[in-house]
Amino acid sequence: MDLVTLEEIRQLKYRYLRCVDQKLWDEIGDVFTLDATVAYGTQVYGKPLNMTGRDEIVAFFRANLGPEIITLHAAGQPEISVDGDTATGSWRFEDTVIAVEHRVVISGAAFYQDRYQRGADGAWRIAHTGYKRLYEAMMALDDLPNFKFLAGVPKAAKTTGTTGTTGTNVADTAVR
Amino acid sequence: MDLVTLEEIRQLKYRYLRCVDQKLWDEIGDVFTLDATVAYGTQVYGKPLNMTGRDEIVAFFRANLGPEIITLHAAGQPEISVDGDTATGSWRFEDTVIAVEHRVVISGAAFYQDRYQRGADGAWRIAHTGYKRLYEAMMALDDLPNFKFLAGVPKAAKTTGTTGTTGTNVADTAVR
Amino acid sequence: MDLVTLEEIRQLKYRYLRCVDQKLWDEIGDVFTLDATVAYGTQVYGKPLNMTGRDEIVAFFRANLGPEIITLHAAGQPEISVDGDTATGSWRFEDTVIAVEHRVVISGAAFYQDRYQRGADGAWRIAHTGYKRLYEAMMALDDLPNFKFLAGVPKAAKTTGTTGTTGTNVADTAVR
Repeated sequence: MDLVTLEEIRQLKYRYLRCVDQKLWDEIGDVFTLDATVAYGTQVYGKPLNMTGRDEIVAFFRANLGPEIITLHAAGQPEISVDGDTATGSWRFEDTVIAVEHRVVISGAAFYQDRYQRGADGAWRIAHTGYKRLYEAMMALDDLPNFKFLAGVPKAAKTTGTTGTTGTNVADTAVR
Repeated sequence: MDLVTLEEIRQLKYRYLRCVDQKLWDEIGDVFTLDATVAYGTQVYGKPLNMTGRDEIVAFFRANLGPEIITLHAAGQPEISVDGDTATGSWRFEDTVIAVEHRVVISGAAFYQDRYQRGADGAWRIAHTGYKRLYEAMMALDDLPNFKFLAGVPKAAKTTGTTGTTGTNVADTAVR
Repeated sequence: MDLVTLEEIRQLKYRYLRCVDQKLWDEIGDVFTLDATVAYGTQVYGKPLNMTGRDEIVAFFRANLGPEIITLHAAGQPEISVDGDTATGSWRFEDTVIAVEHRVVISGAAFYQDRYQRGADGAWRIAHTGYKRLYEAMMALDDLPNFKFLAGVPKAAKTTGTTGTTGTNVADTAVR
């Protein structure tokens, strides 16, 4: 068992996920091979998101995940098999997308099925990542009248919604 | 520190959890020793779930976790100690059970306390797994009038509940 | 790559997080160096929580996280770099705080930025841990009339709130 390679692939995956949630679009490209493919099984768009090539993938992130969209990707439970300069990996994950201005939260869970490739420079990259949903659901923050953001929300968005007054009351009862 | 054994035990646990959430009842038996015991501390049944033997455990999963029950198990933070052909492990986890037809969600968190055993075939298996709850709670989806499943729900279930019309309105405002 | 050190640091972090959620205040001190610093980016107090020294940190936990406060810390996706007897680590995490008596839930996500130090006794300890929020939000359990605790709640708290009757009805429809 090549434990060093397993750790390298884990750190690759963690960097990818961190770049998404921290919106590091200048850095994220290097985690993919140039001809990488993705097949995200989200149903938010009515059909799965299939893309080909590092450039298309990064351009999608840049165009769709602006500051008004909070994304949270928690992946773990990796089952990785290495075969020379290629590898496959299964990862369990849950993701949450908070569309702050629309006051909508989308939650889902799935298992990633990934392929990895070691390049001429010795670095592992994602050649393919994709998943099918165990479930996916959406809800409206307005169904929770006392819901209130404390951090992470763009300034303009903080004043929207219906949480103003009641939110303040709730804050007064928070743990101190 | 026997890092290969730690990785083998981690992958064993991940396979177990994946078989549960993917409902792979033909595969899950092999993760347990024949005389394995479980002591799940869920309070959904009013008392903890104690079972003995691979056959009883697998039969329980098969009978109780059909397509109308979505289960999500996220475990991590393993603290594993190996002593020859036996090992113990603590794992932090959160689980969510969505009873689609009853429109009920049960959430909980706990630390697994596991024992593992290496068999004559060299493979590690779960000899015991159990946990006591940090907390467990249930809620009704009907408290969220705009809640809507996007994926993962059996066909028949999609038409139940009260989300039909308002769900559609929310979908129209989702991220695109 | 020093895989043994990576595992030692992971287990250190897991012990720290487990001591918090299990409220093991007599044990938690040893995970910190004597002069450790923390900079928790929660906004619950209106400003980040900065503390210096093992004693101050442990005293804070002991004073603020009593049995009526349930905390859940799920961390993973570690990116750790080792340099001799010091190391740095990035960890993705989500935390949930349930203030049972106030019937308030605070949820957040962030990336920890940690520094670790190996002592004269050979043990790794946390020299600094801190984070900035990706988001943080609070909600009131009373917005979910059917919400009901099944486990993990102090006896006195179980009778507070408005869930009594409706909660019982929901329990009757739970998975069996």
